[in-house]
Amino acid sequence: MSKIKITFPDGATREYESGTTALEIARSISEGLARAIIGVKINGKLAELNRPIEEDAAVEFLKWDDKAGKEAFWHSSAHLLAQAIEHLYPGVKLAIGPPIEAGFYYDIDFGDYSISEKDFPRIEKKMKELASQKAEFQLKKVSKAEALDYYTKKSPNPYKVELIENLEDGEITFCEHSDFSDLCRGGHIRDTGLIKAVKILSTAGAYWRGDENREQLTRIYGISFPKQKMLEEYLQMLEEAKKRDHKKLGKELKLFTFSNKVGAGLPLWLPRGFVVRESLVRFLKREQEAMGYDQVVTPHIGKKELYVTSGHYAKYGKDSFQPIHTPNEGEEYLLKPMNCPHHCEIFRSQQWSYRDLPVRFAEFGTVYRYEQSGELNGLTRVRGFTQDDAHIFCRPDQLKAEFKAVIGLTQKVLKVLGMEEFTAQISLRDKENREKYIGSDENWNKAERAIIEATEELGLPTVTEYGEAAFYGPKLDFMIKDALKRSWQLGTIQVDYNLPERFELEYIGTDNQKHRPVMIHRAPFGSLERFIAVLIEHYAGNFPVWLAPEQVIVLPISDKYADYCQSILNELKNHEIRSTIDLRAEKIGRKIRDAETMKIPYMLIIGEKEVENDSLSVRQHGKGDIGKMSLNEFIERITPELSPAIN
Amino acid sequence: MSKIKITFPDGATREYESGTTALEIARSISEGLARAIIGVKINGKLAELNRPIEEDAAVEFLKWDDKAGKEAFWHSSAHLLAQAIEHLYPGVKLAIGPPIEAGFYYDIDFGDYSISEKDFPRIEKKMKELASQKAEFQLKKVSKAEALDYYTKKSPNPYKVELIENLEDGEITFCEHSDFSDLCRGGHIRDTGLIKAVKILSTAGAYWRGDENREQLTRIYGISFPKQKMLEEYLQMLEEAKKRDHKKLGKELKLFTFSNKVGAGLPLWLPRGFVVRESLVRFLKREQEAMGYDQVVTPHIGKKELYVTSGHYAKYGKDSFQPIHTPNEGEEYLLKPMNCPHHCEIFRSQQWSYRDLPVRFAEFGTVYRYEQSGELNGLTRVRGFTQDDAHIFCRPDQLKAEFKAVIGLTQKVLKVLGMEEFTAQISLRDKENREKYIGSDENWNKAERAIIEATEELGLPTVTEYGEAAFYGPKLDFMIKDALKRSWQLGTIQVDYNLPERFELEYIGTDNQKHRPVMIHRAPFGSLERFIAVLIEHYAGNFPVWLAPEQVIVLPISDKYADYCQSILNELKNHEIRSTIDLRAEKIGRKIRDAETMKIPYMLIIGEKEVENDSLSVRQHGKGDIGKMSLNEFIERITPELSPAIN
Repeated sequence: MSKIKITFPDGATREYESGTTALEIARSISEGLARAIIGVKINGKLAELNRPIEEDAAVEFLKWDDKAGKEAFWHSSAHLLAQAIEHLYPGVKLAIGPPIEAGFYYDIDFGDYSISEKDFPRIEKKMKELASQKAEFQLKKVSKAEALDYYTKKSPNPYKVELIENLEDGEITFCEHSDFSDLCRGGHIRDTGLIKAVKILSTAGAYWRGDENREQLTRIYGISFPKQKMLEEYLQMLEEAKKRDHKKLGKELKLFTFSNKVGAGLPLWLPRGFVVRESLVRFLKREQEAMGYDQVVTPHIGKKELYVTSGHYAKYGKDSFQPIHTPNEGEEYLLKPMNCPHHCEIFRSQQWSYRDLPVRFAEFGTVYRYEQSGELNGLTRVRGFTQDDAHIFCRPDQLKAEFKAVIGLTQKVLKVLGMEEFTAQISLRDKENREKYIGSDENWNKAERAIIEATEELGLPTVTEYGEAAFYGPKLDFMIKDALKRSWQLGTIQVDYNLPERFELEYIGTDNQKHRPVMIHRAPFGSLERFIAVLIEHYAGNFPVWLAPEQVIVLPISDKYADYCQSILNELKNHEIRSTIDLRAEKIGRKIRDAETMKIPYMLIIGEKEVENDSLSVRQHGKGDIGKMSLNEFIERITPELSPAIN
Repeated sequence: MSKIKITFPDGATREYESGTTALEIARSISEGLARAIIGVKINGKLAELNRPIEEDAAVEFLKWDDKAGKEAFWHSSAHLLAQAIEHLYPGVKLAIGPPIEAGFYYDIDFGDYSISEKDFPRIEKKMKELASQKAEFQLKKVSKAEALDYYTKKSPNPYKVELIENLEDGEITFCEHSDFSDLCRGGHIRDTGLIKAVKILSTAGAYWRGDENREQLTRIYGISFPKQKMLEEYLQMLEEAKKRDHKKLGKELKLFTFSNKVGAGLPLWLPRGFVVRESLVRFLKREQEAMGYDQVVTPHIGKKELYVTSGHYAKYGKDSFQPIHTPNEGEEYLLKPMNCPHHCEIFRSQQWSYRDLPVRFAEFGTVYRYEQSGELNGLTRVRGFTQDDAHIFCRPDQLKAEFKAVIGLTQKVLKVLGMEEFTAQISLRDKENREKYIGSDENWNKAERAIIEATEELGLPTVTEYGEAAFYGPKLDFMIKDALKRSWQLGTIQVDYNLPERFELEYIGTDNQKHRPVMIHRAPFGSLERFIAVLIEHYAGNFPVWLAPEQVIVLPISDKYADYCQSILNELKNHEIRSTIDLRAEKIGRKIRDAETMKIPYMLIIGEKEVENDSLSVRQHGKGDIGKMSLNEFIERITPELSPAIN
């Protein structure tokens, strides 16, 4: 029997007999490992643990904590769901059932059956019953003829037939477990026994192939876990997330709104939302100024030619907002999808020497990208958004230092906003497939090394993904965890050799010759819209005082104290404290409740005693009464909270 | 003989014999008046002073200081120019020759003659010689046949023939003076003798009827005055204006730039220009905040439907940037030409009670309007600009108070920027023609009264123009005079009953019924682009310290003092003084010259003595050395200049 060489992610290699399975390889390392793993990637692709490996291969074992591990788990759970459905509703026709970011779904043609929330428990029960059989997932190759035969004769299903018709003969596989069989590309966990907890979450209508002219199917969403406790935590998190939903809070706290007439995905920032936005902008402007950034302002459109030069038109042109024509024939503009081409043109507008670099152009630039309406979601997925953008033009020898400085800024931003839990993903070139990248190997190596060294020297927690680099250079993305431990991709730092080339950017070096600068794109927030959406959910709307739209509200117990309250308000405003007064003829209880609903950090309650003693009764949001104090004492207390806590 | 009634602008009336001329009427009032006037408006239209008046009429005498007075003067001067040209270049063919904002031009087909700058003096000489004949302008009616006969036989001229063909028979007049005759609508000064000073300014190519497929003519630009001294002052002003040209200074001071790839009329604000812009924005934001404005942010596009509702699409659609299509068929967006529709949608997004009003939504909103490329001019005429926009939604009973507050804000803005010389133009409905306005008479009367009373109560210098109101309401425009006494239209305040109607805006009144709010549009700067262009020219680039991109530059005499200078720089920055350091290996004289060129308000010169005595040698831009002082003394001196002087 021939030998094969298995390479592990850390670069170590071992030899095995040809035909050894991934699970056997795991066992050969340790029984513990074999128990811990739930899936495997072979040569970078999700595969079966029980597939005999017959050639040299790279093997990566997957655990629950790996994204691909969950993918295998939920993919397998979709099979389990389909199996349960077939048991409970014989004769239904399965369409497709993929894993998603959290859980899985299956689109099913239920024929004459109808299904509702009250059916969820029995589906869950059936799934658990079937799971407990610990049935192994078995992937087997079938010919196109066999596959079509199966779905036309044995188990007639026009959806699967249509899918198979689009597949190449020789590449078709079915997955079987217990009494269930499905057309399937593979990538499962070992057996159904790992699935210990399941929950059907919802159903929705879904058109076959997303085409509204095709059949309407029922999509069943579910989620599953290897432990019951994980499911409980997840459901609790969902509950909490619902309360924190930025769309709900955005409305309640009057932060932003949408209008059908303005258009979907185009947020209108209300006065209170403006304050949050502006506070973030001011904070970052200040930090950037201290770091030697210069600010610029550029228009929201540019000639089509600009984006042809930058390459954006070729890449996004068709799927985006279409060119804007003018009364002048042949003239065409585009809404800007990015600020970089404009900043390149600014750089080009003057001569630079090596002494002038780095140049750092920052702009809170609003860009427009067309997203399908189904993709839009509150502020997290919009069609117009403001990037906290900057482009650094530097010499190659300055790249690492600039990169480190940007990482430092991003860390500071995240720390100030209480998002200290994050990982940074280093996205590098594919190890093999290198023809899709532009720029010289030397430049790529330099850039990749600069990022890796910068993160190492700063002791940044990172994960490295090969093949995730942009075509023009490697990048570093910050994935933060919010208060509910949900992951969000926010800030990004990218190295770019492409645009300087396309725009023919130059500086004069010490040698008196023309050189090409390197460009760094960076946005610590990512976009204000998405960042604020995350902040709303992270803080559950309870913004820290410096971000709160209203910081203090003065609540007179009776309108007799209105003048006194007004004088307090004036004093607060003199200290640049964002404050209002509630002069409605309502009971104090109601006033407090309303202020709590609006999540105003401090309430100053003024009645007879307070006026007599020249004092305030102070309530803090979520904490209740924090005692009596003089106005000066209160101002002293709140002052440090008025600015972001930078240390 | 019948009598006619003549009404004067102040409402006074007098009776005259029918057939009396305007000049005779002036003489009947006083010989002094008759000497002072240079033209006349009869029933609102420019007319001849020597035309017999045969019906009741409104008569307005024009002096040089009246805009229409200058119009008559320059129109007459165009005849004089044409006469001089015919003398010097027999056989040329005249096309059209109107007065313009400053001076006049005549488009002429010179045939085989060619004309250049060296010919200007003899043209001027000939004009003055002809002017001194004091030839009276005589307007006479001719039939269409006579007119065509004249220009086909007596003095063949295909341009005039084409013009006449488009005129109604019975409405055609010729104007004659001395040996010159021209097809002309009328509106002259009395005689050529008033023209005491003339200057030919330039020539340019111009297509007949502006059509590039028609004949190319030579356009001669000139200007004339009733006094030689006025011409000298004007030429001096032109010289000074050239030095102050914001396009020239904008480039030299690195404030803004344009790029062909981004597109004409779309400014790119450079870092130093950004500082000027941002300083103005911060100043106005602060003022607005104190006045109870709320800020909002809205996208730069909106669905076409939004502008159909607002009426902007019907009004501007065809001549503007065309709709933006998307991959989704039938979906159309427009670049916003104004912010008001978005603000209306924000107002509509919630319920309002009479107690909530007025609501004031402010936004530094960038809007896009397509201007013909020939109309574009630096920052004064652009295709994308940022309005310091706000919309006030108020009850009708609040209109006057709100209007007064806005006037107060505008006055403050102009005062802070040293533009205290201004007039405010009240634009009201046409007195007769009222069908072109929308809204009830009652509302119009209320709105017009509110504006008039507001300006009166504030003692604002105003001129009133009937027929200049917008179709949706009356308005007040601020025409400021800059340091060169040139007029600029900047800020505007408009009352609007139209958009609240079109957007069906409502609030609940004390009567618990729905009512419609009134809307005020206002922009004290007008637009940041135009305002900054005017500021650059007004200040000749010497911005007051609070607006200066760089406020202080530290100039070491030798690099031995670099560390000392750096510590000074740090201290300045700690005091938020925008400062830099010139560490180049250049002589101090060169450093000072370069700092003067960049118009940096203060230069701190550091040499051996300064380091020894722990002091600075301070130079002020344009003033030179202002003595030695300690850093603390300097900071104390500059601090009040760091903020706009608001009193």
